[in-house]
Amino acid sequence: MTDAHTAHPSPTGAVSDDFHVFDTTLRDGAQREGINLTVADKLTIARHLDDFGVGFIEGGWPGANPRDTEFFQRARAEIEFRHAQLVAFGATRKAGVRVEDDPQVAALLESGAPVITLVAKSHLGHVELALRTTPEENLAMVRDTVAYLRDQGRRVFLDCEHFFDGYALDPGYAKQVVRTASEAGADVVVLCDTNGGMLPAQITAVVRTVLADTGARLGIHAQDDTGCAVANTLAAVDAGATHVQCTANGYGERVGNSNLFPVAAALELKYGRRVLPEGKLAETTRISHAIAEVVNLTPSTHQPYVGVSAFAHKAGLHASAIKVDPDLYQHIDPALVGNTMRMLVSDMAGRASIELKGKELGFDLGGDRELVGRVVARVKERELAGYTYEAADASFELLLREEVQGKPLRYFDVESWRAIVEDRPDGTHANEATVKLWAKGERIVSTAEGNGPVNALDRALRVGLERIYPQLATMELVDYKVRILEGALGTGSITRVLVSTGDGRGEWSTVGVAENVIAASWQALDDAYAYGLLRAGVEPQA
Amino acid sequence: MTDAHTAHPSPTGAVSDDFHVFDTTLRDGAQREGINLTVADKLTIARHLDDFGVGFIEGGWPGANPRDTEFFQRARAEIEFRHAQLVAFGATRKAGVRVEDDPQVAALLESGAPVITLVAKSHLGHVELALRTTPEENLAMVRDTVAYLRDQGRRVFLDCEHFFDGYALDPGYAKQVVRTASEAGADVVVLCDTNGGMLPAQITAVVRTVLADTGARLGIHAQDDTGCAVANTLAAVDAGATHVQCTANGYGERVGNSNLFPVAAALELKYGRRVLPEGKLAETTRISHAIAEVVNLTPSTHQPYVGVSAFAHKAGLHASAIKVDPDLYQHIDPALVGNTMRMLVSDMAGRASIELKGKELGFDLGGDRELVGRVVARVKERELAGYTYEAADASFELLLREEVQGKPLRYFDVESWRAIVEDRPDGTHANEATVKLWAKGERIVSTAEGNGPVNALDRALRVGLERIYPQLATMELVDYKVRILEGALGTGSITRVLVSTGDGRGEWSTVGVAENVIAASWQALDDAYAYGLLRAGVEPQA
Repeated sequence: MTDAHTAHPSPTGAVSDDFHVFDTTLRDGAQREGINLTVADKLTIARHLDDFGVGFIEGGWPGANPRDTEFFQRARAEIEFRHAQLVAFGATRKAGVRVEDDPQVAALLESGAPVITLVAKSHLGHVELALRTTPEENLAMVRDTVAYLRDQGRRVFLDCEHFFDGYALDPGYAKQVVRTASEAGADVVVLCDTNGGMLPAQITAVVRTVLADTGARLGIHAQDDTGCAVANTLAAVDAGATHVQCTANGYGERVGNSNLFPVAAALELKYGRRVLPEGKLAETTRISHAIAEVVNLTPSTHQPYVGVSAFAHKAGLHASAIKVDPDLYQHIDPALVGNTMRMLVSDMAGRASIELKGKELGFDLGGDRELVGRVVARVKERELAGYTYEAADASFELLLREEVQGKPLRYFDVESWRAIVEDRPDGTHANEATVKLWAKGERIVSTAEGNGPVNALDRALRVGLERIYPQLATMELVDYKVRILEGALGTGSITRVLVSTGDGRGEWSTVGVAENVIAASWQALDDAYAYGLLRAGVEPQA
Repeated sequence: MTDAHTAHPSPTGAVSDDFHVFDTTLRDGAQREGINLTVADKLTIARHLDDFGVGFIEGGWPGANPRDTEFFQRARAEIEFRHAQLVAFGATRKAGVRVEDDPQVAALLESGAPVITLVAKSHLGHVELALRTTPEENLAMVRDTVAYLRDQGRRVFLDCEHFFDGYALDPGYAKQVVRTASEAGADVVVLCDTNGGMLPAQITAVVRTVLADTGARLGIHAQDDTGCAVANTLAAVDAGATHVQCTANGYGERVGNSNLFPVAAALELKYGRRVLPEGKLAETTRISHAIAEVVNLTPSTHQPYVGVSAFAHKAGLHASAIKVDPDLYQHIDPALVGNTMRMLVSDMAGRASIELKGKELGFDLGGDRELVGRVVARVKERELAGYTYEAADASFELLLREEVQGKPLRYFDVESWRAIVEDRPDGTHANEATVKLWAKGERIVSTAEGNGPVNALDRALRVGLERIYPQLATMELVDYKVRILEGALGTGSITRVLVSTGDGRGEWSTVGVAENVIAASWQALDDAYAYGLLRAGVEPQA
């Protein structure tokens, strides 16, 4: 038997083989409802994962579908892996078939992947119902397939599907599968909580026993159905597992898989175990967001370590203490994972948090107590009126600049506007808006239609201004949120609108508050375009 | 010292006091970036939480801001709690001040809440930097405040802020705070992982030691910064904690808090511990989604137990085995938490949930497979178009009645409507609407002004119809929510409006979906008044 590991040397930048960070975003992660990856997507994600420094990238099931077969061909040809080894996923041979004659096993070899993960049953119910074979034949399938692939010079890991449920049903048989795989040459036997129903204490107990009883090198594959996938992964490590299977951002079937990023961060920062190449942990936030973009899902704002809210503090009470010693208020320095602390400007805002926020935006307000006092007073007054600056950084910056410069920043002045929505007897709607405004000494009257009154106003404003400010052409509204404040509609309720605008290089958020949705939207649009022109470097009117 | 607990008997439906499910959505959960709750929102959420059956609802910090003070006044007057006790949150007395003279402590008593949670420092760094006092005075502050509130007949829980970090720094002092609180009469001392940096194994070890060394009744408050809040909560229970602090959907500062729903589900289903009133666990999914609607956040599709994807299976490979024995492929029966298994690709409600919902509304659909099929098909079609019936019971009931009776339920027919919003040069707005409709054979043309276009439409509709349906006079819109579906505003996004209407005896919710906010609002109003007239016992038109 050749030593598959030396036959396929690790990439030069790989970390030690003593502990495996094994990523299965491209195989198990792609099972997430709503994810549909092209080969190009998979190649891009593989590059990001290799860049992050995982030890293994499970790319798919070659032979099971043409996309995965093509991925392995192109990945070998197009990607020079610096840290990761490519892994092909497949099943043990079919029952009653010689392993040499099983085309599914042949496709695994043809993929050229140096490492192969085989999935096997270790739960008697599944052996009977899904495989329709005997417990003995299942063991032979494991033994034959592992030994054959090892003989062909591949490194083999074995995934024991439904392991923990199988162990609860028949621990003896479950352990026999582990022993069989290990004795046949599998380097790691991975215990899978396929249905995701386990809790950490159970995982620790089972992994500890299986390790003691079999002596096999063990891995863990956890699903998040109890909300404990990260903890379950760490619980297995506590019990001696040295191989963790995860997916980027926890993508996966049902609730998802164990999330690569908090697992890697916990191992490096809490366990003090080096599992990524030097300096790579600081790329966590960037890599997480980049992969979210590729799979076309909005990055979760509340994801541990990498979410935009993960180190955001509502200032108020503790702002002054945070200024003196931030480490009293955060479990790690956010820079360690490439994130940053953010102070939210909220109705609890005090002087300290305004100063911190100003600093974040590039204004040093520390020396000017009177200016800070004025900003605090204006924020309080406006938040009392229903504004929120926590989600509207651009509106806050406009307010701050106004106070710093002592005058409002104006690109145009509005004389009046009007919006009309009409429901016709045939059920269709007509939306029309007219704006009258002044810009650079010129009076502009502009009318436009839209799919709604706000859209019509937005278009009338752009149509009117684009000749004077051509920069507006690159901007577009990317998100729009409406909230009615104070319960009762008939009795002077207030409407708050938050608008996100983008120019292809970035996004900014603005807020408007008024007694009705159209007037509030207008204010947010007004701020959005003023800030966009400021970003674009356009000089405001005198 | 009076026994505060007996002085304030538990609500009749409460579960045993031996184990506390303590919810802090309204206090700590409201710290989540992007959440901004009105008093009406807080009252609605309190009703949902009481309905779910938590033992304690922490409503806010009375005295700290006018909104929380008002909440406690109104909650006592307007809500008849069946399961929960209302809890006021506050701090120990100020350093160097007699507890009787501290206005913050007085406000806690004035709130009238039978239970008070006091936050205290147990970390020497925070005692020094944030409180700017001595370790001894901090202990005195704990002792005095707990004892005083107990003397005033309140039950007291003590939150030890930053406990685990404080314990790492100086375990002796941290335990001294626990002992001091317990000896002064605090019923529970809650160990808080305020910065959220802990992992389950650490939690179990510390809680076990503190329990052994102090003998105090212990609780746990976990934050999700390592992605382990649920596991950390359970880890504390494993070590003997009998009080868990959670928030609905895990809302909270930074990454969030320990999520009430997976914690309750794990305790009931995995630990076999009854922590909710009988039958309430099956309401988990409904309550989770209803609260998401109130805070105006999209329910997470991948949330454990309650997400729409939580029990979704990509069919194919295992479909037939799943049909024979679904329990081999899911960790629990989803019906236990009010969710359903979904076999691809159908995105929405299945027959079982429609039957369940029908039953809830008083329709027994079990016998009529063809009718249920029709309703499922219509719900699917409309949810695909952007409608949501989870938060719009009244619209769903109208749809259901239409299918049961074979024809729409009409009180009036709309010919057309129009709304105009005008911004005048002086900055004021004019809002005017005209509706043309038919009711009981009569053509009605009605015009009204309002504080916004929706309000103007609402008034024009009522003015026109009140002569024919005087019952409309008792109805009023009590809440109004708007969500834009599909990111991009300029490119055919869809607007969904949810309206709550009341008639003094109850409230009902309706939904409208259209390409703009005014048209969507109109639909929701149309349903709202149709349902209101139905409730009032008015015969529909033939």
